[in-house]
Amino acid sequence: MRTCVSGMAAGSSMEWLKSVKGVILDMCGVLYDSGEGGGRAIHGSIEAVKRLMDSGLIVRFCTNETQNTREKFVQKLRAMGFDISVSHVFSPAPALVRILRERRLRPHLLVHDDLMPEFDDVDTSSPNCVVIGDAADKFSYQNLNEAFRVLIGLEKPLLFSLGQGRYYKETDGLKLDVGVFMKALEYACDVQAEVVGKPSADFFQTVLNDMSLQPHEAVMIGDDLLNDVGGAQRCGMKGIQVRTGKYRPSDEKHPSVRADGYVDDLAAAADAILTNH
Amino acid sequence: MRTCVSGMAAGSSMEWLKSVKGVILDMCGVLYDSGEGGGRAIHGSIEAVKRLMDSGLIVRFCTNETQNTREKFVQKLRAMGFDISVSHVFSPAPALVRILRERRLRPHLLVHDDLMPEFDDVDTSSPNCVVIGDAADKFSYQNLNEAFRVLIGLEKPLLFSLGQGRYYKETDGLKLDVGVFMKALEYACDVQAEVVGKPSADFFQTVLNDMSLQPHEAVMIGDDLLNDVGGAQRCGMKGIQVRTGKYRPSDEKHPSVRADGYVDDLAAAADAILTNH
Repeated sequence: MRTCVSGMAAGSSMEWLKSVKGVILDMCGVLYDSGEGGGRAIHGSIEAVKRLMDSGLIVRFCTNETQNTREKFVQKLRAMGFDISVSHVFSPAPALVRILRERRLRPHLLVHDDLMPEFDDVDTSSPNCVVIGDAADKFSYQNLNEAFRVLIGLEKPLLFSLGQGRYYKETDGLKLDVGVFMKALEYACDVQAEVVGKPSADFFQTVLNDMSLQPHEAVMIGDDLLNDVGGAQRCGMKGIQVRTGKYRPSDEKHPSVRADGYVDDLAAAADAILTNH
Repeated sequence: MRTCVSGMAAGSSMEWLKSVKGVILDMCGVLYDSGEGGGRAIHGSIEAVKRLMDSGLIVRFCTNETQNTREKFVQKLRAMGFDISVSHVFSPAPALVRILRERRLRPHLLVHDDLMPEFDDVDTSSPNCVVIGDAADKFSYQNLNEAFRVLIGLEKPLLFSLGQGRYYKETDGLKLDVGVFMKALEYACDVQAEVVGKPSADFFQTVLNDMSLQPHEAVMIGDDLLNDVGGAQRCGMKGIQVRTGKYRPSDEKHPSVRADGYVDDLAAAADAILTNH
């Protein structure tokens, strides 16, 4: 038996879903919970993805994951049972590499070791900007200090952050995300970082372009109220928050961001979408 | 030969010094540069402190130092040649311990190992607040995450920060200060920290009370434009910035804070004060 959507029947509460032609899915906290051994699929999510894809809706995946290359990350998801192809997954590192090329920038990288192959073809000599990703344990005092010294030594400090998340949930509890260290370096150097990834409008637009859809034709489903739901809404999309992953009950009383729907999990979201489709 | 004050003769540029009865001195970056082996005295500063004290002015020391107990810290300065007594030094940890007692708070401590003895008599069981100091290398991802989990687990997250400095200068270069990690945890938990130490008005007022002076009768001398000079000015004191320690030429073009005088070092500050005294 499926739990009701926000305490109401799925069909009645989100009639706006009738106009939706495409679905963008956040991954961590929606499809799976990360953690030791790569994490585990959230109950019902593998089937939910399959049902959405089989329905004729255009489905894309949009993640701020920066602890792995996109290829390795998709491999991990496929091993869990998700039928996902690399070309349908949008993540910050490839988007940043394009920006670095276009603007001829040479980064000092403070990113996870497993993300490093994304930057294999990038010139990192005499850095003229700093890039941080979800480096997790690599966010040592020494490494942060090194990034800080590069940044403050530049005539015009330029900081890129791969996402701006506050924290995420792993199987053993909440963990600090890259946004926290972005704020740290922003304060240290009195600069504002350029965020690549959600909730950047450019990032969402790239996904919409790939889907050949207008914003009002797409819905974003995520566990992060600000970066998934709020970000998508600012682009003109609808946003649904799932009560899995980093969701906290207080999200439903947030002073400035309100999701277009709250559902217990991705399976419930798929029910609501397919009922209205 | 003494370098001129801000390019002008010391006596002519700061006539307001005539009304000053007391001097509050920042320590790191004004008296000495910290670093390996405890650091080293800045040229001319030992004599400058002596001259100020001998002149009949009331002299106090005000530091955001939290890598040592106040006792050990003063021992270090005395070993360098400074004639300073513990009772004339104001630092954040003893001020915080008073607050914790008054408000019956039990802290989770993320502070330097050498500061821990300040908290010997403080109950740290079942913490209901988090305290961060300049923990330096102890600001690992794991320790920050632990502090974050305590904070976000509280019904009303309460964070104390011993100072809010951005960075300081050691003999081997600039180092990130506690304020950077305060901003990190503030963002992670959507809270605003209570700052104990400079530039908190309460902290400056404690020093003024000890001197039995009104704010307009005292001048603060520091290397930190925002926390020393700006903080003192907001309390009604005058503030002089020295061009030692973490001073950067861009400080003299800061959009919102302007020191009442800029001098090359503490010796030049003493010259200016004693010329006008």
